[in-house]
Order: sequence, then C-alpha cells, then structure tokens
Amino acid sequence: MALTRLVLICLLVHLCCFGVLMIRSVSGANETHFFKWEVEYMYGAPDCLTNIVMGINGQFPGPTIKAKAGDTVVVDLTNKLLTEGVVIHWHGITQRGTPWADGTASISQCAINPGETFNYTFKVDKAGTYFYHGHYGMQRSAGLYGLLIVDVEEGKEEPFKYDGEFSLLLSDWWHKGVHEQEVGLSANPMTWIGEPQSLLINGKGQYNCSLAAAHNSGSGGLPECNFRGNENDTCAPNILRVKPNKTYRLRVASTTALVSLNLAVRNHKMLMVEADGNYLQKFSVKDFDIYSGETYSVLFKTDQNPRNNYWIYVGVRGREPRTPQGLAILDYQSTTPTKQPTLAPKPTPGWNDYQRSKLFSKKLLAHSESPKPPANHHRRIFLLNTQNRINGYTKWAINNVSLTLPPTPYLGSIKYGINESFDQNSPPDTFDLNTYDIMSPPSNPNAAYGNGVYTLELNNTIDVILQNANMLKAGDSEIHPWHLHGHDFWVLGYGEGKFSSEKDEKKLNLKNPPLRNTVVIFPYGWTAIRFVADNPGVWPFHCHIEPHLHMGMGVVFAEGVDRLGDIPNEALSCGLTAKMLMSGSGGKMLTSGSGPPKTFNPIYILYIFIFIFSYF
Amino acid sequence: MALTRLVLICLLVHLCCFGVLMIRSVSGANETHFFKWEVEYMYGAPDCLTNIVMGINGQFPGPTIKAKAGDTVVVDLTNKLLTEGVVIHWHGITQRGTPWADGTASISQCAINPGETFNYTFKVDKAGTYFYHGHYGMQRSAGLYGLLIVDVEEGKEEPFKYDGEFSLLLSDWWHKGVHEQEVGLSANPMTWIGEPQSLLINGKGQYNCSLAAAHNSGSGGLPECNFRGNENDTCAPNILRVKPNKTYRLRVASTTALVSLNLAVRNHKMLMVEADGNYLQKFSVKDFDIYSGETYSVLFKTDQNPRNNYWIYVGVRGREPRTPQGLAILDYQSTTPTKQPTLAPKPTPGWNDYQRSKLFSKKLLAHSESPKPPANHHRRIFLLNTQNRINGYTKWAINNVSLTLPPTPYLGSIKYGINESFDQNSPPDTFDLNTYDIMSPPSNPNAAYGNGVYTLELNNTIDVILQNANMLKAGDSEIHPWHLHGHDFWVLGYGEGKFSSEKDEKKLNLKNPPLRNTVVIFPYGWTAIRFVADNPGVWPFHCHIEPHLHMGMGVVFAEGVDRLGDIPNEALSCGLTAKMLMSGSGGKMLTSGSGPPKTFNPIYILYIFIFIFSYF
Repeated sequence: MALTRLVLICLLVHLCCFGVLMIRSVSGANETHFFKWEVEYMYGAPDCLTNIVMGINGQFPGPTIKAKAGDTVVVDLTNKLLTEGVVIHWHGITQRGTPWADGTASISQCAINPGETFNYTFKVDKAGTYFYHGHYGMQRSAGLYGLLIVDVEEGKEEPFKYDGEFSLLLSDWWHKGVHEQEVGLSANPMTWIGEPQSLLINGKGQYNCSLAAAHNSGSGGLPECNFRGNENDTCAPNILRVKPNKTYRLRVASTTALVSLNLAVRNHKMLMVEADGNYLQKFSVKDFDIYSGETYSVLFKTDQNPRNNYWIYVGVRGREPRTPQGLAILDYQSTTPTKQPTLAPKPTPGWNDYQRSKLFSKKLLAHSESPKPPANHHRRIFLLNTQNRINGYTKWAINNVSLTLPPTPYLGSIKYGINESFDQNSPPDTFDLNTYDIMSPPSNPNAAYGNGVYTLELNNTIDVILQNANMLKAGDSEIHPWHLHGHDFWVLGYGEGKFSSEKDEKKLNLKNPPLRNTVVIFPYGWTAIRFVADNPGVWPFHCHIEPHLHMGMGVVFAEGVDRLGDIPNEALSCGLTAKMLMSGSGGKMLTSGSGPPKTFNPIYILYIFIFIFSYF
Repeated sequence: MALTRLVLICLLVHLCCFGVLMIRSVSGANETHFFKWEVEYMYGAPDCLTNIVMGINGQFPGPTIKAKAGDTVVVDLTNKLLTEGVVIHWHGITQRGTPWADGTASISQCAINPGETFNYTFKVDKAGTYFYHGHYGMQRSAGLYGLLIVDVEEGKEEPFKYDGEFSLLLSDWWHKGVHEQEVGLSANPMTWIGEPQSLLINGKGQYNCSLAAAHNSGSGGLPECNFRGNENDTCAPNILRVKPNKTYRLRVASTTALVSLNLAVRNHKMLMVEADGNYLQKFSVKDFDIYSGETYSVLFKTDQNPRNNYWIYVGVRGREPRTPQGLAILDYQSTTPTKQPTLAPKPTPGWNDYQRSKLFSKKLLAHSESPKPPANHHRRIFLLNTQNRINGYTKWAINNVSLTLPPTPYLGSIKYGINESFDQNSPPDTFDLNTYDIMSPPSNPNAAYGNGVYTLELNNTIDVILQNANMLKAGDSEIHPWHLHGHDFWVLGYGEGKFSSEKDEKKLNLKNPPLRNTVVIFPYGWTAIRFVADNPGVWPFHCHIEPHLHMGMGVVFAEGVDRLGDIPNEALSCGLTAKMLMSGSGGKMLTSGSGPPKTFNPIYILYIFIFIFSYF
C-alpha cells in the first residue's frame, strides 16, 4: 500500500515538474506559414554588372513572405555559406514572447554556423508593410533582404480601400564587396565606402546609365543600357501592370545601406496611408522621402492618359548624389515589350533641401484610431550622436560610447547571469547637455568602445531624445535613421539645435504622434520618441545606415529578461552560454531532442528519500 | 565513528573519480612557446596592387614560429573576422595526442566563431621545415599562412652542417577575392579561378612586371615595377644577405593555392637535404620542383663572384603558365640600395616536361637513418582521381565520391557516436580496376556527394594507391599534390598508367622510400604510399590544390578515436556535438572553468545511500 501511494506521489510530483514544460502554445484559427530557406552567395547582376550577391533559395532579393495579422511564420533558415555565420532580422516584427527570433547576431542569438539550420518561429501580430534582412556584419549590404507583407485579418478592414497592390523594395548597390568595405571602414585612416553605384528597385538597377536621362535627352544611353522593354531582360526595370481608373496600394520599403531616397510616380499623386505597419492620417503628396529602415504604403489612382506609361523613380536625398535614379515602370498598356514612358522622370528634390524633408516628416501623424502614447515618461534618455576617434580610428559614438558587440549574445548572457560576457555598467543616460556644442566638431573627439546595455524597468515608459551634432568635419552633420527592435515608438517631435527641456518639452506632440519603428534625425537637430518597455528581451536601437552601425552607432536596451521562459539552445550555442550549457550547469532544450534529456534532476533525490522512508 | 568512516569513504571515492581529471601533462625539459594571435582581414598589397588579405596580428604572411624538436607550441587564436569562422592547420605536425589541434574545420574542430579564442596546444616532435595555414573554405587562398620552423633538439645533430639559414614561403595570388572565387567554382556552369596574377615569395610579388625580364631585355619594366633595390620598397623582392664562401640552408615551403613551382638560384647549385621534415639522401640539383603542401631544405655555397648579386626565382610548372616568375635576391654585397643582379633568371623548365618532373621526384630517397616502412600492408586502398559532374555541377571525386564536409566535425561525432552527423557507410576501397579506362574522360561522369569516412584499424599498415586519370576534358590529366594529416607516409613509387598489382607491386621501393606528408600524382599515372595508422584521431587526406579540395577532392581517415581522452569542449561547440553537450548528456570540460562543473554526478546517489544506511 505504502509503495502504491509512493508511486502515485512520485508520479504527481513528476507531472507537476515536467508536464508544463511539454505544452507549447499552438495558435488557433490563424494560419502558420512554413518556409525552408537556404542562404548562399551566388552570381547576380543587380545593376547589369555581374557580381556576387547573398541570395535565398537562389533568389535575390529573397522571397516575399505574405501572411495575415495573427498568423505564425516559421522559417527554417539553413546557412549554405562556406565560412560565414548568418542571421535574419524581421524588421518591424515585435517578436513578443520570441525575442530569440529577432535575428540579431550577438544580441538575440548566436549566428547560425555554416551547414546548420535555425528555426525562426514568430507571430506577425499587426498588418503592415515589413521586410527582413541580414543583421550580422554587413550582410544586408551584401544583398540579404526581402519583403514581409502582413495583410489584415479576415473580416477586419483597413481605413482605406484599393483595387490592387504592388510592393517595391528599395536598396543601394556597390560593386566593391562588403568584406573590402568592412576592411576600409575599420582601417586607420578609414576608407569610406563612397556613394553606391546603383539604386535598386526589387533588386534591379541599371549601372552607369539612366534610362530616364537617355530617354529625356534623346542622346541614347551607354552601351550597358540595353533595356528593350521586356520584363525578362537582364536588369530591366520592374514593370507594374495596372488598369485605368483603379486605386492601387504601393507598399514601399527601404533597406538601403546608406542613402536616403525620394520616390515619385510621374504625373500621379499619392496618398500616404501607412508607415512602418501603422496607419496614418491620410495626406496627399507628389513625392515622398523614405529613409533606410522605413516602410510606407501609398494609394494612387490610375487616372492619367492610359495610352502612356509612367516612370516610377527614386533618387538620393540627404547626401550629395553620385548615383543615377532607380527606375520602375507603371504600365497602363500591358504590351509586350513594354513601351517606355514618354515623360521623363523629374529631378529628385535638392539633396540638401532639409526644410522640404522636415515638412514631410512633420506631416506624418497617427490615424485617429491609432494607440495614444502614455502622458508621462518614467525615464528619459538623451543620446548624443557624434563621430569620434578611438586610438586614431574613426568611429560613431552615442554619448561618447562606440558600440562593439560581444561574442556572446546578450539575451543568453543576461538570462543566465553571465556577467563577464559584457560590461555590467550601463552607458550614460545623457551627455553634457549644458555645455556640449553640437554645432562644432567634438572638442575632444576621443570616445571609448563599449558594450554595456541600458536596462529598462519592465513596463516603464521611456523617452529617448536623439540629439544630432556636428561630425568630425567642421560644418557638417548627417542624417541618421534610427531603428528600434521589439517595439514601435511614438515620434513626439523634431527640433532644431539642442533639445531644451524648457523650450521644447511643451512642443512635443502627445495628441496624435505617429507610431513608427524607424525615425530620422536631421542635421544639427533632435528627435524625441516615446515607447513602453513592455516586451521582455534585448533590443538594439541603432542607426540603420549599415556602415554607421558597423562603426558603433547604436545602443542596446534590455527589459524583463528574467520573465522569459526557456531560450532555445540553438540561440545560445556560442561563446559563454555554450560554455556554460556544455559544462552542464543550466539550460533545457525547448524542443525535445532524440530521447529524454539526460541531465540529472534533483527531484530524483526526493524520490529516493520518499522511496526509502516509505519503508519505515 | 560511523560518520567519520563514511566521510573518509566518500572522500576516497570522490578523489578516485575526479582527481585524475585534474592532472594535465606538463612538458619537462623542453620549452613551451606561447603566442597570442588575432586573425583579421586587412589591407595589403602582396603584388603592389592594394587588396584585402587575411593577416595575423597585422602581418601578412603570419608570424614565423620557431621552436625546437620536443617543444610545445601554444597559440591562443582569436578570430577578429566580422562574420567568418576560422581555424589554422599546422601542416606537417602530427598532433599525436592532440588531434583536436589539427585545425581542420568540420574534421578536428568547430570553426572558431568571430570574437572567440581557441587554444591550440601541440608538441612539435620532429625537426624540419613546416608551415601553417587556414583550413576552412578557401581562407588559405585569402592569405592565411605562415612558416613553422622546428630546429633539432640541443645536443642533437642534423646529417649536414651550415653557417646560416633563410626561409622562403611560396604562394600564388589572385586579385579576385576568395568569396567570388568560391561562387564561381560552385556555379553551374563552373567559372574557373584562372591562373594567379602573381607568385609571392614571403608574401611579396610584383604584378604584371617581371623585374628579371625587364633587366634581361633592357627595355625597362612596366610602370608598376618601381623597385629600386631598397628592402623596404613596397613589394620589393626579399633580399637574402649572405657572406661569400659560406654554406647556407634555404628552407622552402609551398602553400600555393594552385600552381606547382620550380625554384632556382642563378649560378648556384643546391644540395637537397630535407623534405617535409624528413632527411633525404643528399643529391645536387640546379633547380627543383615543389608542389603545394611540400617543404624542402637545400644547402648552397656562396661560391660565386661576390661582386655580383643573384636572382632566386620561381616559375610555374605543371600548368601552362600565365604568371611571371616570382623573385628574391641573393645579396653578396649588403649595399644599400641592393644592386640588381647582373645575370637574368633562366626560364623555368618547360611546364609540361613531366619526364623532368618525374626524374626529380624519383631521386628523392630517404636518408640512411630514416625509419623504414613495414614490409607488408594490412589494407590497400585504391583512390581513383576523377573530375565529374553531379547534377550538372563540375566536381572532383575520389572513387566517384565528391567529399562534402558535414557541419559537425567528425572527431566529436565519432567520439560520441553521433551517427546521424555523417554517412556511416564507408566510401569504396577501390574502383573498377579491371575495366576503368583512365586514358579517357569518365564514360559515365556522374558522381555522388559523400561524407563517409575510411575507418582504419589502429596500428594497421595502410597502403594507398593514388590513381590519376583523364579529367572531363578529353586528352587532359592534371597534377595533384596529396597531403595527409596526422602522419608521414613512405612514397613507395610512381608509375605510368593504371597501377597493376602484378606488374607494379614488385617495383615498389621498400628499401629507402622517402618519408613525406605530401606527394604528387602525375598526369595519367599512379603514386603508391604506405603509412601506419597509429595516431588516434580523424585525418583528412586530400589534394592540396585549394579549389580542388573545395570541389570535393579528398577523403577522411579515422583511427582509434575511442582511445582518445576528453576532447576540449571548445572544439565541439557546434552542430550535433554542441546540441548533445548542451542538453547535458555527455562531455566534460578539459580545462577547468570558473567554479566546479555543476552537472549532477551519479556518485552522489551512492553517497546518499551510504549516508542513510550508516545510521542503521
């Protein structure tokens, strides 16, 4: 009897301890989309010049993911590179409950080794226009990117209607390989990557020839420009086939490594309706700016002469351009070959007409049904953006700290308390607001390398004031588009010069600030954002210009990591987390491997005692 | 009393179980050499054209290691690459007892992740000329190599004397980056890497200009050739400063990615004395061939007119050359600047004069005191070398199997019995010896990918007959230098056509065959080697031409892996071994981490029982 009772007790204890671990949440009505992807270098000719590009399943750009809000996306990503690790970041997806799927090497996971596969499983909880890209070294620049489109749930409606849609993924392209770019950026003196050779729309551009210009001047293009209007011509522009008198949604995402862009459709007005997966108060534009990391949806009507076709064109802003416009064609006629448009693209607005840029940015306001920001913040962090020198090397720094990512990802280090894997001191919450002269080059340009994190209290409301300043070169300050992982934030305002709590505080927009995941800071200006730190995980916030991030322009936020369940071992199998777990001192497999885990569980000791004492 | 006795018993059991693990062998009289190395890409101009190269501690080639036989070398190798893993193979070092330090990714260890450090500790047990190089992807081609010189132990003498010594590390150099080379080789149709732009001696060459030719013709070199005789001129040839009437040892190692070379010193005869760390029956030459993976020592006397300097020159053999000779200067005068030699280099012997090559190879015989081969073999493996197609992709294959390395290194997989990590079937021990026509392209050119290993019985004597054949192109068969890890082998003989047991067996040289770690097979010929499988570990045997190995030209031998002690976790932290160890089902840390290992040991259960029952 005692034995039977004992066995029952043991069983109960066992079930209580282990049973719950076996239950994995399974989504209900929503769909799950499975993908098997292989990343590799392959030949490509994004701008008609053969080069190597990073592709997925033989495609560049990578395949477009389409899902509905609430769906689950599962990507088994196999690394087919020969010697390089790889990760993919799902830009704009908040990864609630799955911070290990954010795809940031050194932050959310260990890079996937060559030949190995990582399972990215995450929920796409909000309709909108997103994209994905490499987030390791400069693999985004190498071509590792693609679109991620999330439609509204069935039965739900968006605050606008349209008859059809197209997606344009914008990027910039260099002929010099990323490894050489990296060496240059890390050298002393630094060799800058220079301006891109081409702008790409959905991975297609035309090097050293502007079809538009050729058309305009009538003088003919360069020999490389052999586009004859066939969709399948190498590097032919994308063709968007439309019917007259319809309304189309154009989804636009920018994954440029460097340049800011302006997009227009000749003769067509556009209605801005969505930014970074959040609805806007609609407003009409003839063209719009888009910074790296941003996405927009615009609506346009095909109300122009249907006997013509029309250029869609993007050009460089915010930097003195040395790159021809990137092109696509709005095709009313569906002839084969496609007729070239009769009207040439207009010139891109002046690259340094920042007033124009600011006017546009300030028009972006949240749709009336968009969530409102909390009225107050718990903590305000000032982030001074400066270019600096460290031991003679040119770096970007935030509050004088240039971010250098540690080999062991933060998520595992913090979860398991591995303090030696990164600097346990927080970087400063502010800079010398009173005396720092943002209009001059840093008077003492020395910064320090750092890898500390900002630990945010879970559910606190955080304000960040991004403060731009003069770079090392006198009289110059650049645009930086900042992207936050794991959250959307409200853009409370932009201002000139140094942020002043007295003067600027009251100007902040708490009424209808737009929700974004990426926002720009203008030269010599500031941008104020607010977000709620309600997503347990570790989240970088960084300049989305690839070489700037490479040079240290970012910070790392951590919140509520102790609340997280088991991190999949696959995300931890490097550095000090691997060392710890391989020595057997922690960690459980989230997914069951072959056979039961063989670690000894202390509960067995309890069984033994119960077993022995049941005899007395 | 019972308690005291119990504590004592527990202590004893504990000590027996754990104590032995704490003892690490410490070398006695011999020295230990410690190095801290960082691998990174950097700017370099190996042949006067700026490019990126893989360097160690800012040097290209990497630092030369000097040690004495019996010494221990410790290299803490930190990977400072941004996204690539790295390993270093110590070419010619047998790694007895330390097979995890052989530096072969996918075979002996997991590639070192960016930011992480791997400890290579190994004994250099035999005097000789060695080198080291990357063994992951095509990182050797990217410039990851350097010299490793092992002198005789103090008090021991070599079978020759000399007054001074120099070392020359030979390599070939492309302007196209290795990532692009890899994509081309893996593409369908394949894009071949072509002939190298330059030959380098100790990392220095001159692109598109032959100083020698310029000198010879009197017509002047190309503008790039601005060598004025200063040692520190960019890409100036190496200068070997000698005194007249002395005897010098010249150590020569070839780490070429592709080409076979011939080296000569104008007007100087040379005496061959060492090959791959083994002494030779001395013989005199005017020039000598050296294949990738080989090393030689030659002696020469400075017995020429001391008012002149003399070119040392290397040229391409075995392939139709498109690359100028590589140069160094033997400088009798020690003037600054160095005077250019008056006599031009002679032309390199005809690239396809294979009779000349064979005559040289057959002259290489072991020194009388060199170990003799066992008289008989236990197992003979025939390895047919063919070029093949797999699904249209051009590959090299051995017995119709093209080697594709698995993500989880063999050493750990075999040690821990992780059968699913590679094909458990052995590749074939032979090909169709009777019917295969080695003089024609493969009649059925289809091969298969494979990653099975040849499991060798420990201490068995193994013969390998390397059988060359026609490649895909009719009428063509190429040179392949085969390199064996973990062992030296005796070169029993070379022959024409297909190896015939009847005809060729009796011609094999068992009297004084040279010991080597690398041997060439000539077009349409065979080479027979013998070795004793007495080194527990997993050892690749492969063509040392980098693109050929990349295309599958190799096999893997495993012997006595069950005899090995603990493999350091650092060598196992990837793939299925990491998965296994992180799930806690095996493995111990070889080096003690911070604090004791926290895995539960079953011995504790015993303690508990003893403890409880000691009360009754």
